Amino acid sequence: MIRFDCDYVEGAHPAILEALARTNMEQTAGYGEDAHCERARALIRAACQAPEAAVHFLVGGTQANMTVIAAILRPHQGVLCAATGHINVHETGAVESSGHKVLGLPHKDGKITAAQVAEYVENHYADSAFEHIVQPGMVYISHPTEFGTLYSLEELTALSEVCRRYQLPLFLDGARLGYGLAAGDVTLPDLARLCDVFYIGGTKCGALLGEAVVIAAPALQKDFRYHIKQRGGMLAKGRLLGIQFEALFTDDLYQRITAGAVSDALRVRAALQSRGVQMYIDSPTNQQFPILTEAQRAWLERDFALSHWQKLEDGRHVMRICTSWATKPENLEKLLSAIGAMPSD
Amino acid sequence: MIRFDCDYVEGAHPAILEALARTNMEQTAGYGEDAHCERARALIRAACQAPEAAVHFLVGGTQANMTVIAAILRPHQGVLCAATGHINVHETGAVESSGHKVLGLPHKDGKITAAQVAEYVENHYADSAFEHIVQPGMVYISHPTEFGTLYSLEELTALSEVCRRYQLPLFLDGARLGYGLAAGDVTLPDLARLCDVFYIGGTKCGALLGEAVVIAAPALQKDFRYHIKQRGGMLAKGRLLGIQFEALFTDDLYQRITAGAVSDALRVRAALQSRGVQMYIDSPTNQQFPILTEAQRAWLERDFALSHWQKLEDGRHVMRICTSWATKPENLEKLLSAIGAMPSD
Amino acid sequence: MIRFDCDYVEGAHPAILEALARTNMEQTAGYGEDAHCERARALIRAACQAPEAAVHFLVGGTQANMTVIAAILRPHQGVLCAATGHINVHETGAVESSGHKVLGLPHKDGKITAAQVAEYVENHYADSAFEHIVQPGMVYISHPTEFGTLYSLEELTALSEVCRRYQLPLFLDGARLGYGLAAGDVTLPDLARLCDVFYIGGTKCGALLGEAVVIAAPALQKDFRYHIKQRGGMLAKGRLLGIQFEALFTDDLYQRITAGAVSDALRVRAALQSRGVQMYIDSPTNQQFPILTEAQRAWLERDFALSHWQKLEDGRHVMRICTSWATKPENLEKLLSAIGAMPSD
Amino acid sequence: MIRFDCDYVEGAHPAILEALARTNMEQTAGYGEDAHCERARALIRAACQAPEAAVHFLVGGTQANMTVIAAILRPHQGVLCAATGHINVHETGAVESSGHKVLGLPHKDGKITAAQVAEYVENHYADSAFEHIVQPGMVYISHPTEFGTLYSLEELTALSEVCRRYQLPLFLDGARLGYGLAAGDVTLPDLARLCDVFYIGGTKCGALLGEAVVIAAPALQKDFRYHIKQRGGMLAKGRLLGIQFEALFTDDLYQRITAGAVSDALRVRAALQSRGVQMYIDSPTNQQFPILTEAQRAWLERDFALSHWQKLEDGRHVMRICTSWATKPENLEKLLSAIGAMPSD
Repeated sequence: MIRFDCDYVEGAHPAILEALARTNMEQTAGYGEDAHCERARALIRAACQAPEAAVHFLVGGTQANMTVIAAILRPHQGVLCAATGHINVHETGAVESSGHKVLGLPHKDGKITAAQVAEYVENHYADSAFEHIVQPGMVYISHPTEFGTLYSLEELTALSEVCRRYQLPLFLDGARLGYGLAAGDVTLPDLARLCDVFYIGGTKCGALLGEAVVIAAPALQKDFRYHIKQRGGMLAKGRLLGIQFEALFTDDLYQRITAGAVSDALRVRAALQSRGVQMYIDSPTNQQFPILTEAQRAWLERDFALSHWQKLEDGRHVMRICTSWATKPENLEKLLSAIGAMPSD
Repeated sequence: MIRFDCDYVEGAHPAILEALARTNMEQTAGYGEDAHCERARALIRAACQAPEAAVHFLVGGTQANMTVIAAILRPHQGVLCAATGHINVHETGAVESSGHKVLGLPHKDGKITAAQVAEYVENHYADSAFEHIVQPGMVYISHPTEFGTLYSLEELTALSEVCRRYQLPLFLDGARLGYGLAAGDVTLPDLARLCDVFYIGGTKCGALLGEAVVIAAPALQKDFRYHIKQRGGMLAKGRLLGIQFEALFTDDLYQRITAGAVSDALRVRAALQSRGVQMYIDSPTNQQFPILTEAQRAWLERDFALSHWQKLEDGRHVMRICTSWATKPENLEKLLSAIGAMPSD
Repeated sequence: MIRFDCDYVEGAHPAILEALARTNMEQTAGYGEDAHCERARALIRAACQAPEAAVHFLVGGTQANMTVIAAILRPHQGVLCAATGHINVHETGAVESSGHKVLGLPHKDGKITAAQVAEYVENHYADSAFEHIVQPGMVYISHPTEFGTLYSLEELTALSEVCRRYQLPLFLDGARLGYGLAAGDVTLPDLARLCDVFYIGGTKCGALLGEAVVIAAPALQKDFRYHIKQRGGMLAKGRLLGIQFEALFTDDLYQRITAGAVSDALRVRAALQSRGVQMYIDSPTNQQFPILTEAQRAWLERDFALSHWQKLEDGRHVMRICTSWATKPENLEKLLSAIGAMPSD
Repeated sequence: MIRFDCDYVEGAHPAILEALARTNMEQTAGYGEDAHCERARALIRAACQAPEAAVHFLVGGTQANMTVIAAILRPHQGVLCAATGHINVHETGAVESSGHKVLGLPHKDGKITAAQVAEYVENHYADSAFEHIVQPGMVYISHPTEFGTLYSLEELTALSEVCRRYQLPLFLDGARLGYGLAAGDVTLPDLARLCDVFYIGGTKCGALLGEAVVIAAPALQKDFRYHIKQRGGMLAKGRLLGIQFEALFTDDLYQRITAGAVSDALRVRAALQSRGVQMYIDSPTNQQFPILTEAQRAWLERDFALSHWQKLEDGRHVMRICTSWATKPENLEKLLSAIGAMPSD
């Protein structure tokens, strides 16, 4: 069985394992205050053209989301996001467990718009009983979204402007950011300029684990290490994360390996479309969502693990196929062949 | 500068790095549902002689503590522990952030007694206003404690009996458990028999990161994975933890490497005592707490990083010296020589 | 200006003020442990035919909701309710502030069905990633709903059965329960039989303040006073609530005064309908929701305060008109006259 | 049995009941936005000589404490207070339930000093692992304290200065403030000048229930009504609190009735001392803490309810005797006579 069901089925990029082995017996300070973390932070600040940004390494996406959101919001505030946002549906209520409501907005392809945010805020304060309603306190988006889609630079700029107008910090979940950078027109410096906080996902983009949280807004930088510690995210051997991001941001490794995965994914998409398969959503990144018939699904699942996303009323299935930095060329070819040979319906 | 300031200044035991490298391109399921995690769980259950125990792998000590405690307590309950307990003083209020008061008891060498627990509970219900006071809902101990001391089997048995009498789950923080197993008379099967939940520390005992939480009490096992996810502790690449514990529990690696560290520490203690140095606390494990004069401290700190614990009123300093699985023989010899040559006062 | 905008614009029923004056200088124990509270509890248990029920007096609806919900749920659980439920939209995230997600379901007239609950629970456990999703832990309904509508005995029985099948406690918010008892076919004994917890609203049904929480399910009764205290709901002069409920449950006062309000409301509805006014929702209780033209609204608001609920796309307004135990006959007549004389469109 | 065990055993001052009766059928807006609340706020601002202060009416002390503290602190911060502070020992962990640690300091007669606060803060930031420790975020004191003692103007001024130096909001719990104003040298304008937030206790000083929270610091005023609503403290019939404080702050009622209670208490103290009874603590307010022998206690408890505070090792009992605005002269005389006639030991 060859797995294309998600992008975290292997370990780490070999360059990372090598770096871990090479540095293994170095003695360093703990809790992220070692030289590797410091260099990784410097590399990330440089890549973001954000010399004043604070950079912190956290273990995973849920932890990064809950820590950032809890650090920003006051108790009576909630976080606006797409109803399909990861924090709203797939984190076992981590945000609520820190006391805050997730304010889900209707989405289009997993995205929300600047106009929606503006309307929500205006409506909130126009309500005569507004103090009886959770106050919108920040905006969360994911990029790529849970559907693999991307904000364009124009869309992100508009969101950023609205957020600044209403003094709502804008937080971007970049658990799969590498694939988004490779596929879209938004760059790291754009993110540092337009977002207040965002993170650069490592776990799904080549690392064993780890997310680099970039706090661009000076007002949100204070005391963040307390929050990391309180939420269980401060590793004694913080170097484990620093060494990995040091490797990922050396010689453009992060961008190279995610770009490869995106081009692989587009080949899969093309192969599916050439067989007449409809895509549930038009994703330009490493996650593809074909709609397969029962027979097509069965055919592919004989040799490949895919994710089942949803069953449609007509009996067909929305499946997820992921490539990653780790996709082996021979496995990709096998998948393309199988798609070529699968039943027409 | 050679570091003896703590036991997490290096990476992982080489056998762990090898295991990570060897398995790196295996494709596995995520979230701890892979075969490595399964084998590691089986090895741990066997080592604990607890075939019915649930075993979960978490990232670090603070996360393990907050997740277990929040999963067990009801909202009006608090956790009894030594006032010096890690959860009370060095986790930035992680337990309180989940809504619960830490009920600190006076300690002796970092430990609490069965009698103290019984008295606290009796007094609670004897108070006419008991409903105005946080209800004691569980007991937390650390073993080794924050001072390197250990519960004897007799002490632990007494605590366990009292906890069962009052229906208080007993939770043991084993962040440095390996060193405790090597130095004391309490075994893993004892822990599985006497505690409701405990964890086997990996981060400070040879792993890159990770703690194996063993839930011995069947009533506390239900739904625990929800709690892990909610608190940010469920790694996408959960295998990273499983592979490490698989290595640590193969061929007694865990016990061997921690036993070595303890014998190193006892040599350091003997060397200090032979120089007339008084120990702040009588620790049988890998952490030693000598009381040094200003001159002695300066002498040692020229070549060695030590931890400063406390300044005494007479001007002397309580220092912490740690050995670990990673202590190199040549570094140990250098330290012993330096102790031999340091000023008398 | 005569107020019909809500049902809490006056003080208390005169019988309550008299009882407060009569007992004012009695010396009693505090915190709800006085004889008045005890008698009120006995009267309520008798009215509910539930001799084993626990009865507690809380200050208001939000407090009752958050205290009951936080006492019942475990940290990874959420509460199912209609998306329009008060806890989801008008309590400033009180439930989330205690760590729990509100799981809003599509509603019909403010109500949810047994089938919806069953389907939600089945879908939850059928999801392969269910541990990444908040677990449904209880069901909240309001009766009357926020739209003045009622569950029939048949609907409530079906909900109760589904809840018991899935071991979900059923909690009924009765902030306006008096009006519901007067208008529907569900009785207090039915509630005690079918719900696990419910409350009998005092604030909107004749009292100065206060809600009587009835915990019918023995398993949920333990330690509830701790929760009340922790959430700020335990009044030093708890008698203030006991005396009021003692008065309300003497000589059927509670049922008499709410029945009067309902018949007043139905006269208002009939008057509106006789003028061709459409009702936004078909409410049998003391809240009526006519759809008025701009001219009709302006006409009525010259002399009467009404609540503005919503502006429709055609420019008309959904208004709320409330009667209550305190509605004066002469004011009702004035309103009926004004409706009779208002513009046709 | 005549009760002197606490100061909330009767209802309300007759002037308050009269005001409630007189205004009962007035129709007003809800949620504290009525004219009575507005007048009460104006009267309190005037009494405090603080025209810019925000004034809010909450139901009780625990609710006021938890709402104010949760509104001020950020998640990683705790509240400094005397270890004996009400929030630390008698509120079932309400502060912790909102996520914050209570940082108890050693007390003297229930009080803490400016020097203690300064030392704590300095030590916090001097610790190399300070981010692993809860950050001190505000200071809570009670006045009178739980022992009936008072801060002098000089002590309070020093505390205020230290708090401002370290940017720690100073919050004063005035559940029994009336008795403190009558007995000490601190005035309402002093409180408004020296504290950031304080409250004027109604429940124990003549009202049925209610505490008037005065937010003197402009930076802390924003959005406070959201917090009240979220914590369950926003009464639909908010007028119930406004009317009471309007009465209490008309014609100096508040100060008159509490002054009477203090002079009663001092007569009790003098009577006890004339019998050679030692006071456990030197309280100048309405709570007195005599140390009685078993025989003395039994003698007094035949006719009077007193509070048992503590049993001393020598077998004697610390008892609490409270007077209040409601103490009847004839009951006071009976108590004084009984003291005069009680056994000598």
